[in-house]
Amino acid sequence: MSNRNIRVEPMAGLAVEDQEVEIVERKGLGHPDSICDGIAEHVSQALAREYLDRVGKVLHYNTDETQLVAGSAAPAFGGGEVLEPVYVLIVGRATQTYQGAKIPTETIALRAAREYVETNFPELEFGTDVIVDVRLGEGSGDLQEVFGEEERTVPSANDTSFGVGHAPLTETEQIVLEAERHLNGEYSADHPELGEDIKLMGKREGDRIDVTVAAAMVDSYIDDIDAYQEAVRDVREYVHDLATEYTDREVEVHVNTADDYDEGAIYLTTTGTSAEMGDDGSVGRGNRANGLITPNRSMSMEATSGKNPVNHIGKIYNLLSTAIAEAVVEEVDGIREIRIRLLSQIGQPIDDPHVADAAIVTEDGVSVADIEQEVTAIVDRELADVTSITERVIDGELTTF
Amino acid sequence: MSNRNIRVEPMAGLAVEDQEVEIVERKGLGHPDSICDGIAEHVSQALAREYLDRVGKVLHYNTDETQLVAGSAAPAFGGGEVLEPVYVLIVGRATQTYQGAKIPTETIALRAAREYVETNFPELEFGTDVIVDVRLGEGSGDLQEVFGEEERTVPSANDTSFGVGHAPLTETEQIVLEAERHLNGEYSADHPELGEDIKLMGKREGDRIDVTVAAAMVDSYIDDIDAYQEAVRDVREYVHDLATEYTDREVEVHVNTADDYDEGAIYLTTTGTSAEMGDDGSVGRGNRANGLITPNRSMSMEATSGKNPVNHIGKIYNLLSTAIAEAVVEEVDGIREIRIRLLSQIGQPIDDPHVADAAIVTEDGVSVADIEQEVTAIVDRELADVTSITERVIDGELTTF
Amino acid sequence: MSNRNIRVEPMAGLAVEDQEVEIVERKGLGHPDSICDGIAEHVSQALAREYLDRVGKVLHYNTDETQLVAGSAAPAFGGGEVLEPVYVLIVGRATQTYQGAKIPTETIALRAAREYVETNFPELEFGTDVIVDVRLGEGSGDLQEVFGEEERTVPSANDTSFGVGHAPLTETEQIVLEAERHLNGEYSADHPELGEDIKLMGKREGDRIDVTVAAAMVDSYIDDIDAYQEAVRDVREYVHDLATEYTDREVEVHVNTADDYDEGAIYLTTTGTSAEMGDDGSVGRGNRANGLITPNRSMSMEATSGKNPVNHIGKIYNLLSTAIAEAVVEEVDGIREIRIRLLSQIGQPIDDPHVADAAIVTEDGVSVADIEQEVTAIVDRELADVTSITERVIDGELTTF
Amino acid sequence: MSNRNIRVEPMAGLAVEDQEVEIVERKGLGHPDSICDGIAEHVSQALAREYLDRVGKVLHYNTDETQLVAGSAAPAFGGGEVLEPVYVLIVGRATQTYQGAKIPTETIALRAAREYVETNFPELEFGTDVIVDVRLGEGSGDLQEVFGEEERTVPSANDTSFGVGHAPLTETEQIVLEAERHLNGEYSADHPELGEDIKLMGKREGDRIDVTVAAAMVDSYIDDIDAYQEAVRDVREYVHDLATEYTDREVEVHVNTADDYDEGAIYLTTTGTSAEMGDDGSVGRGNRANGLITPNRSMSMEATSGKNPVNHIGKIYNLLSTAIAEAVVEEVDGIREIRIRLLSQIGQPIDDPHVADAAIVTEDGVSVADIEQEVTAIVDRELADVTSITERVIDGELTTF
Repeated sequence: MSNRNIRVEPMAGLAVEDQEVEIVERKGLGHPDSICDGIAEHVSQALAREYLDRVGKVLHYNTDETQLVAGSAAPAFGGGEVLEPVYVLIVGRATQTYQGAKIPTETIALRAAREYVETNFPELEFGTDVIVDVRLGEGSGDLQEVFGEEERTVPSANDTSFGVGHAPLTETEQIVLEAERHLNGEYSADHPELGEDIKLMGKREGDRIDVTVAAAMVDSYIDDIDAYQEAVRDVREYVHDLATEYTDREVEVHVNTADDYDEGAIYLTTTGTSAEMGDDGSVGRGNRANGLITPNRSMSMEATSGKNPVNHIGKIYNLLSTAIAEAVVEEVDGIREIRIRLLSQIGQPIDDPHVADAAIVTEDGVSVADIEQEVTAIVDRELADVTSITERVIDGELTTF
Repeated sequence: MSNRNIRVEPMAGLAVEDQEVEIVERKGLGHPDSICDGIAEHVSQALAREYLDRVGKVLHYNTDETQLVAGSAAPAFGGGEVLEPVYVLIVGRATQTYQGAKIPTETIALRAAREYVETNFPELEFGTDVIVDVRLGEGSGDLQEVFGEEERTVPSANDTSFGVGHAPLTETEQIVLEAERHLNGEYSADHPELGEDIKLMGKREGDRIDVTVAAAMVDSYIDDIDAYQEAVRDVREYVHDLATEYTDREVEVHVNTADDYDEGAIYLTTTGTSAEMGDDGSVGRGNRANGLITPNRSMSMEATSGKNPVNHIGKIYNLLSTAIAEAVVEEVDGIREIRIRLLSQIGQPIDDPHVADAAIVTEDGVSVADIEQEVTAIVDRELADVTSITERVIDGELTTF
Repeated sequence: MSNRNIRVEPMAGLAVEDQEVEIVERKGLGHPDSICDGIAEHVSQALAREYLDRVGKVLHYNTDETQLVAGSAAPAFGGGEVLEPVYVLIVGRATQTYQGAKIPTETIALRAAREYVETNFPELEFGTDVIVDVRLGEGSGDLQEVFGEEERTVPSANDTSFGVGHAPLTETEQIVLEAERHLNGEYSADHPELGEDIKLMGKREGDRIDVTVAAAMVDSYIDDIDAYQEAVRDVREYVHDLATEYTDREVEVHVNTADDYDEGAIYLTTTGTSAEMGDDGSVGRGNRANGLITPNRSMSMEATSGKNPVNHIGKIYNLLSTAIAEAVVEEVDGIREIRIRLLSQIGQPIDDPHVADAAIVTEDGVSVADIEQEVTAIVDRELADVTSITERVIDGELTTF
Repeated sequence: MSNRNIRVEPMAGLAVEDQEVEIVERKGLGHPDSICDGIAEHVSQALAREYLDRVGKVLHYNTDETQLVAGSAAPAFGGGEVLEPVYVLIVGRATQTYQGAKIPTETIALRAAREYVETNFPELEFGTDVIVDVRLGEGSGDLQEVFGEEERTVPSANDTSFGVGHAPLTETEQIVLEAERHLNGEYSADHPELGEDIKLMGKREGDRIDVTVAAAMVDSYIDDIDAYQEAVRDVREYVHDLATEYTDREVEVHVNTADDYDEGAIYLTTTGTSAEMGDDGSVGRGNRANGLITPNRSMSMEATSGKNPVNHIGKIYNLLSTAIAEAVVEEVDGIREIRIRLLSQIGQPIDDPHVADAAIVTEDGVSVADIEQEVTAIVDRELADVTSITERVIDGELTTF
């Protein structure tokens, strides 16, 4: 066993699943904030890979500040049009020169943004429906990082920062997370009328779960108000069915409740996202690293998307604490809820946090003392393997929003 | 008594003051994220006031998306210079025409930004050290709000959203909050060498509090390394003295711990903010509405700065829940900690939340039942007075970051 | 015969063909100034056509202010890369609302720019190698123009302005113009190594013509210095052969004379244009409406590209005067050189200029008096048909640079 | 006598003063194109001076591409307001690093722009009425120029280019040039109601000169339509009086002839320039280097404003040819009109042009042969002193527009 400062203790209070009121939110792939998260993270991955390819190590960069300025549009049944394009400004720092080699950081960023937009938003034409601009400066020159192909030394923390993760997800969390993923996955493959801008709010009071969905419809696939109503109904039924896979509680699903058919006010878009009409967005304003906004749980303010995964401690610790929580729950029986917090110490190796703190709600008949040693061992093992988080981020295996 | 859905219940777990580990952070006035918060909120206030002056009511707007792109600088003892200006893009929506009157929203925004920068950042020349650009579109036309001079009807919630507030502040929270305010207040008046970009992290473990300060120094007031060291020492002593006013616990203060005098790596700036050199920023990424980042407490992801205070429910409920918590603690004895949560119901009047939830840790010898009625009455009263939050925001009496 | 104020008189001095020294320049399709001209004019045509399609008439617009900010690149034999993208800002005015209809002017502009770039610059990826941004405001609302499908009333001049045209082209002019068109036409179809940024300077002293060509080569088609030298040689031979079709004078062709092979300084690019590396551009800085820069002749400062062809008198009169000059030369024998000048009178119908002035150098044995009547009739006829200029511009039949 | 290739010959045709029709235009200080010229040239001077101060020599730069995007405004008697700010983008190239020294080129550019705007446009608040942005890249690194404090070697021509100048000015030219300068000089000092955006068109037919003035009035100094009419009348009378100092011909002055008092369409502005409302601008689109647009004379397309005065041959030769023409006319009797053309030879010293060509219309009784030797000597002397043009540009003694 290492000398890492790992604490395991009972959590004060009830597991979230047992609390009376629970609120869970997820901003889907096409929400303006998520668009920014997605571009920022995709740019980050592209930069990391290019640095590895070109100079054998990841150099200093951070691209966690994409800003989206909404456009305007005139959606119409059967197909409307974008009047003013969405404007996206990719902001950040990236090393442009290394031992004589020029790294085309802005070109890399723009290509990554194009790839991300074209892959995920088929109705949004890159360069015309959305203008993507870029301002990547260089940061302090002395921050070149070592994350090479041969050497995987453990970097030092660049800041005093904090990460937090939980497991397992509650039923409400699972429903909110999975509903969005499935809607933007298998469902939309068969239902092109559903845009990517889907926002879900789950509210559980006791044993009743209300899922409120705001789902942008794409006008070119919606010919009239009847088709719209059918599209809304389809989403409602799909989400309801999906929810019952995760819970036995009573579930009610509400879709596009702000619609007013008499006024003709419905959630119809040309491109599938409200970014086309008045909704701005930026990185780090939406989902936390586990894909959810969970006011019942501790959250970190850190914007993980776009940050350098080699030594940006806020990003690493948020992803790592979630990974640890999941590993513990999977491997150890008797845990109803676990929260992992990692607090860095600036200048110290990131595998040796100032404190790693596990707070546990055990199941009936299990005490924290029973499992403390097992939990500690897992936390220790995962901390020792911290650099695999970096690898998985670069490979796109871990999502950040 | 109204029919509002108000719940008062004991809080699960310990008061934060009694937890073993507590972490508190504050990004000071000149931190790039706070610069954005401040500009966004100042622009918002200016727009609200101009709408009232010109058309007698606050019209639809939201200016909560300012993006800052860092510049570059060459600080030097005795005075360096900015090489590339900071770029700030004010983003949002604002109604530009109302009953034939044209509202110069972009001019209002730029003037507010200028006023804010010139008032708060004397070393940062508006227009040359920092370029401020603006992209204010118009949102959906049907969202004109009623918050007139004669009529103060209670608006309806524009979203399903959530606000949370706490009282009282813990010692560590008070120290972190007050230290920054005093450093950027009376202290800097006498010490022009201290820049506005001050970041504080308070960490309490049991009865020991460590306050870590990163304080940008202004090069034109620092002639050499000795002067720099003296400036660092002065800050440390000042914060230590101030901290002892709020706690009897052991306090240690660390200032600019990342400095490396041998390498000549010190926190010296030309303009007093790291925005001059590589640190980007945006709204809503830093302090919560109470001025702090408090991972030990429930937090809302909502970016309050820049939002319309008339009907943006996320902004109002975050500010209101804090105000309620403070009112309860001031008026009711026996409370060690209270958390107020307000959950809106889209389309319902904002003075009638879906649920208003008060969770309380009482002092020894007091039970929640003893004070429940009193607390409920205060919550009810404050909810009834919700529009005063709007007024106080417009008048600049409430801070949002 | 009309009452138009048409004057025909002998030109003072020699025909340009007979002058001792003649200088002629053409900036080819891929020169940064020409890229701007081309985008601006293509955007203009697209707007005019969309206005006609949507509301049956061309509304007020002007898009004659595109600005190009150069990028940076690292060309290399076999294929280099763009480091920083080119940035193009389309600037202008365009009516966005007409009788309730919304015209998506910015979307139209961006799509036209994309089409133009993709058609003409195959190596320049729209959106990544070149970022195209747009700022189209609205001008004064009262300037809506009448150029409808049913009504073709003659508009009034919007300004006191001036157009000038000449015919026929001198040999040097023909060589310079045709060499660029053929190089960017049939030649480049077979020689992908030749970029679009070709600049030609023709200088004739007496009976010797020197043609200096600066031709950007595309690195992905050039494997080494030998291939580069061969590419240069091919261009030289092609231009020389072409020149001899237009003249019996002695011709020498110089290609990429600024190259310094020892220093490795050659004109190699990644995208085929110097816009990739340090050469900015804007509308109206290069070729005049006849495609040439001709210091030996009267020239107008007017930037024709991007201007509204319905009533922008500077554009119309420059194109019309050239068309008149060409018509006269084609139809009337005995003319060695003709210059047509048209001076507008603000507020008057554009088919009735303040003065239409034809200055003629006749061939030996012909006097101006002999042909005056014939010339006057042609000028009169062409003026009466002025609106066909508008049609031909909208249809893309007339080039502006 | 040197070996310079200087030719002196009779000009074909009449002196402009003797031609039947003459057209002369000047865009005043506040015209959007001139604003761009002025900022570009002021930025250029500032860069040149800073380079000299910091590294003892002028390094490579060119800042000849400023783009202005018009704003919108709501002028009103007694004082209106800017609705959307003017946006100015300074574009160019400038060396940022020299022997380890960092040159803050963007800061220098922005400060120069601020100084220029504040000095010349008192109604235009820098940073709020007009946003000034900057994109200064670096050009090719090998183009560092030698124009040091100790060494004044003659640089080589960077291009094959062409300059042309004339003297003396005709009466119409003098009237147009001087009227604008006096209106924007002594007149406006006493008449703050006159804005800086003054455009003059002089048209002479035989012995009658029509001067058409478009003069922006500043609304805060104009209380009603009577005051406006008085302001127009004052300008008309002033220009008429001034014109009579330069000519005995009949002069008629027309001011703001496009006004339509019945429609309320008058030339009233809030800031004194049409840039506030729909008129975009850019460098090199307006006045030639001598301050005028003169279709009766040879003109160069070169945009002189903003170009590097050390070795940008187009700028130098346009200014130098004008200076030579003026010197010849001042020193040599018997000249009615002279035109100087200078054609560079790329790579050759700029004091040794490929050809320097003087075309002269002599006064009655004087032949070119009489004065050829004298003229040649002056041309030769001025060419030898070419670097003084650079000095005078840097010192702001020569205007470029």
